[in-house]
Amino acid sequence: MVIECVPNVSEGRRPEIVAAMADAIRAIDGVRLLDHSFDTSHNRSVFTLAGDAAGVERAVLALVERATADIDLRTHRGEHPRMGAVDVVPFVPIEGVTMAECVALARRVGSEIAARFNVPVYLYEEASNNPARKNLEDIRRGEFEGLAVKMASEGWTPDFGPAAPHPSAGATVVGARMPLIAYNINLATNRLDVAKKIAAGIRHSSGGYRYVKAMGIMLEDRGIVQVSMNLTNYEQTPIFRVFETVKREAARYGVQVLESEIVGLVPSAALNAAAEFYLQIEGFKADQVLENKLHR
Amino acid sequence: MVIECVPNVSEGRRPEIVAAMADAIRAIDGVRLLDHSFDTSHNRSVFTLAGDAAGVERAVLALVERATADIDLRTHRGEHPRMGAVDVVPFVPIEGVTMAECVALARRVGSEIAARFNVPVYLYEEASNNPARKNLEDIRRGEFEGLAVKMASEGWTPDFGPAAPHPSAGATVVGARMPLIAYNINLATNRLDVAKKIAAGIRHSSGGYRYVKAMGIMLEDRGIVQVSMNLTNYEQTPIFRVFETVKREAARYGVQVLESEIVGLVPSAALNAAAEFYLQIEGFKADQVLENKLHR
Repeated sequence: MVIECVPNVSEGRRPEIVAAMADAIRAIDGVRLLDHSFDTSHNRSVFTLAGDAAGVERAVLALVERATADIDLRTHRGEHPRMGAVDVVPFVPIEGVTMAECVALARRVGSEIAARFNVPVYLYEEASNNPARKNLEDIRRGEFEGLAVKMASEGWTPDFGPAAPHPSAGATVVGARMPLIAYNINLATNRLDVAKKIAAGIRHSSGGYRYVKAMGIMLEDRGIVQVSMNLTNYEQTPIFRVFETVKREAARYGVQVLESEIVGLVPSAALNAAAEFYLQIEGFKADQVLENKLHR
Repeated sequence: MVIECVPNVSEGRRPEIVAAMADAIRAIDGVRLLDHSFDTSHNRSVFTLAGDAAGVERAVLALVERATADIDLRTHRGEHPRMGAVDVVPFVPIEGVTMAECVALARRVGSEIAARFNVPVYLYEEASNNPARKNLEDIRRGEFEGLAVKMASEGWTPDFGPAAPHPSAGATVVGARMPLIAYNINLATNRLDVAKKIAAGIRHSSGGYRYVKAMGIMLEDRGIVQVSMNLTNYEQTPIFRVFETVKREAARYGVQVLESEIVGLVPSAALNAAAEFYLQIEGFKADQVLENKLHR
């Protein structure tokens, strides 16, 4: 069983604090720290870890312990919105594990965080049954500074823990979601309006594909524009369909796709689906991939 | 380090003998038997195993020991050409291992087979330096029945072992090659001439791509034709290029591609290359695949 977990922590300016959190994760059995990075302007770190349910649970609790001791949101400044020292903890099913098991894990870990560290916890995405509290942006709106007022208002009692923010660590959002793919398509034009129109056409919020978030941006140094996307469920909204739609919409403006890029990690199954689609492969099974067979 | 090895053995009619050979492989540490199958009309078995160099070496020697004891080519009949009890032993680089290391392994194992079992060994493909003895079909021409005469003729001294066939076990061909992909493209027509013309156009032997073997065949039960292929080096001659060429050539005859199929195993990198090509992904690296990162 492999579960990925990608905690986002509100510290990106003191490398020694980030390193101490990474060490706290590395000290745990049954989990591997695959990657970690921090961003000074966001003042935020992202850890990518993977392991079995027990391993990622222990690692997250160790991380929250360190973060709660070392981070004080009352003095934290940064560009990225945040409401907690450990701001968001998503669990992601990768191999030999269902979404339902990741939801159960998110609830267990959320409950433990509240019980051990007295930090209120909101569930989100698949782990939340409340339609108004599925979307991370909705839960985080108002940020740490607005949290005490928000928590006292109707509908914002947390899922676990105290009904008011932790004085220095705020509140933590815990949940389960599909792997997220950061995917960009660069267009052979400097017309930002074209990228923005295409983004509006494909994103869920304005009538596009259900699991696409998109915006059009200018890549100043290259003099071209980009449709910058997050694909939040590659099974339901596959990469190839998004790519083909962007290509077709661009053609409408006489614009060609220059290239695309995947930022960070991508599940093998998301790439295989593209190969199957374009090569018209019928009856393909995941266990035909040599590496899948090897590692099973 | 992962090396795949796919020994072909001249026994496909006595299940208990095939099972005993599979057990001999399973008893070895450092190697896994991923798959095995036998064909009664061919009277032949194919074993797929994977492990490190020492593991696959021990497994192959254990297999040769059993096969030499149990198989007598003097009474062996079957449709598939063969010259040895263990007929062919290819080593295939999969992960963390170079072709040069697989060549060295093939030579070591070939020398051991000759020394321990008194079976003459021919090297082939990447393990052979002799242009006339790279191609398996050239080495095997004449089969077991013609082997004594062939071995006595100029240019056919084996690479290892005695200058005459083993009385019951013949000779064994050992070498190193890239993973082979069995790939078929079905056309929406019953015109066998179209499939044959396309096959002739893309295969190496008649001027096509260097690492493609192809033939046009009729799928009688479905009333359609197929371009049936072996892709012998997916890095040098990638799947997507072959697919696009077949599609274009079919269009020349007013014929469409119905679907394609991958038979058996395919390396993840071969599918990723197709995704990269069609999605125009720039700067993609294998360690962006989540599973590659996990299993490293």
